[in-house]
Amino acid sequence: MITLYALAQSRSIRIVWLLELLGVEYELKQYQRQGIFAPDEMKRIHPLGKAPILQDGDLILTESGAIVDYLISTYGQGKFAPHRQDANYWHYQRWLHYAEGSLMPFMIMALVFYKVEHGKMPFFVKPIARQISQKTYQQFLNPQMRLHLSAINQELSDKPWLMGDDLTGADIMMSFALLGAKMRYDISPYPHILRYLQQIERDSAYQRAIQKAGEPMLNMKQTT
Amino acid sequence: MITLYALAQSRSIRIVWLLELLGVEYELKQYQRQGIFAPDEMKRIHPLGKAPILQDGDLILTESGAIVDYLISTYGQGKFAPHRQDANYWHYQRWLHYAEGSLMPFMIMALVFYKVEHGKMPFFVKPIARQISQKTYQQFLNPQMRLHLSAINQELSDKPWLMGDDLTGADIMMSFALLGAKMRYDISPYPHILRYLQQIERDSAYQRAIQKAGEPMLNMKQTT
Repeated sequence: MITLYALAQSRSIRIVWLLELLGVEYELKQYQRQGIFAPDEMKRIHPLGKAPILQDGDLILTESGAIVDYLISTYGQGKFAPHRQDANYWHYQRWLHYAEGSLMPFMIMALVFYKVEHGKMPFFVKPIARQISQKTYQQFLNPQMRLHLSAINQELSDKPWLMGDDLTGADIMMSFALLGAKMRYDISPYPHILRYLQQIERDSAYQRAIQKAGEPMLNMKQTT
Repeated sequence: MITLYALAQSRSIRIVWLLELLGVEYELKQYQRQGIFAPDEMKRIHPLGKAPILQDGDLILTESGAIVDYLISTYGQGKFAPHRQDANYWHYQRWLHYAEGSLMPFMIMALVFYKVEHGKMPFFVKPIARQISQKTYQQFLNPQMRLHLSAINQELSDKPWLMGDDLTGADIMMSFALLGAKMRYDISPYPHILRYLQQIERDSAYQRAIQKAGEPMLNMKQTT
């Protein structure tokens, strides 16, 4: 029996989506955030207490990339990933790592600087906090996001999904980071990413996931 | 022929270490940073221009976790990773994702807030920038680092390497993040991590890697 311990409105939506795609039976145990983090009771399941956590029999697994790889390897019946012998296989693995290892850190940093700018503080600190946050966006976050989004847009320019004609774990991993990017950066210069996100939102398994787990979001507004 | 495009004093050291462990022939092309990033000429090899980049015949691969997995799967001869059928295999994969996906973002954020605190700015801004940085450390970075370091220390309490008696790709991936943690957090409360880092620094392949590629570092001092 598969149990998914998830955090509401979080990156956990990816695993719900995948479980829906795979058509396996699972139980969804969803928790609410305490501030920006998972609640302490999740530490009873895994010492870090971070979502998502997948339990399948004796296996308790964390890290979304590893969970996606595990579920597709175990229940995918040859779908949702290239075969290990395919030339593409390692590019697929690269996307599984890239989503959290290279792209998501910019989203988290955007969230932290949003807090720097909008947190409670004395009025005379506010303009300086704003200046520090804006400078970080201008000198670091915005140029990096442009670089990454341009490269992803280019990848999507000649194929419907990241690995070609078929939806794979690469798309599942990248979905949340790109939905996050759309929430707080201007992604209108990247038409292939816009088209790709619409495609995800139209996927029937994704829609079932949203119905069960709610819309994903990060608690911040757009910053430019 | 394997070519590793690496950035001096960076996380690329892990791949050099692994290539030394595997005893395969490779060429190391090492670049110097431009500011905090890889130089623009690395974009000729891969559009993001981030190190490390591995080239092996027709394959050009990025993301350290994927590179480690690829090299060990291809050249490991059954060493440096559990077998795919082992109960431990997915915990191994979890470490490959965890290092960059969950632990390193705190190091990068520490680096950014170090810049916030120590960058060029008018004298009247300085105390406020310092206050913002310290608050982020106290409320966010330090508690998160304690949580993660405690869990890793616990993992290492009953075995020499993360997966047991043998050094694996999990250790290679975790080495840089933990060396980074040692540089800028007080890790004296974590004796098993201290012992583990000494063990890494004593490894003869690691020493050869350091000789070829130089000591890894992030350009910041310790912040508490």
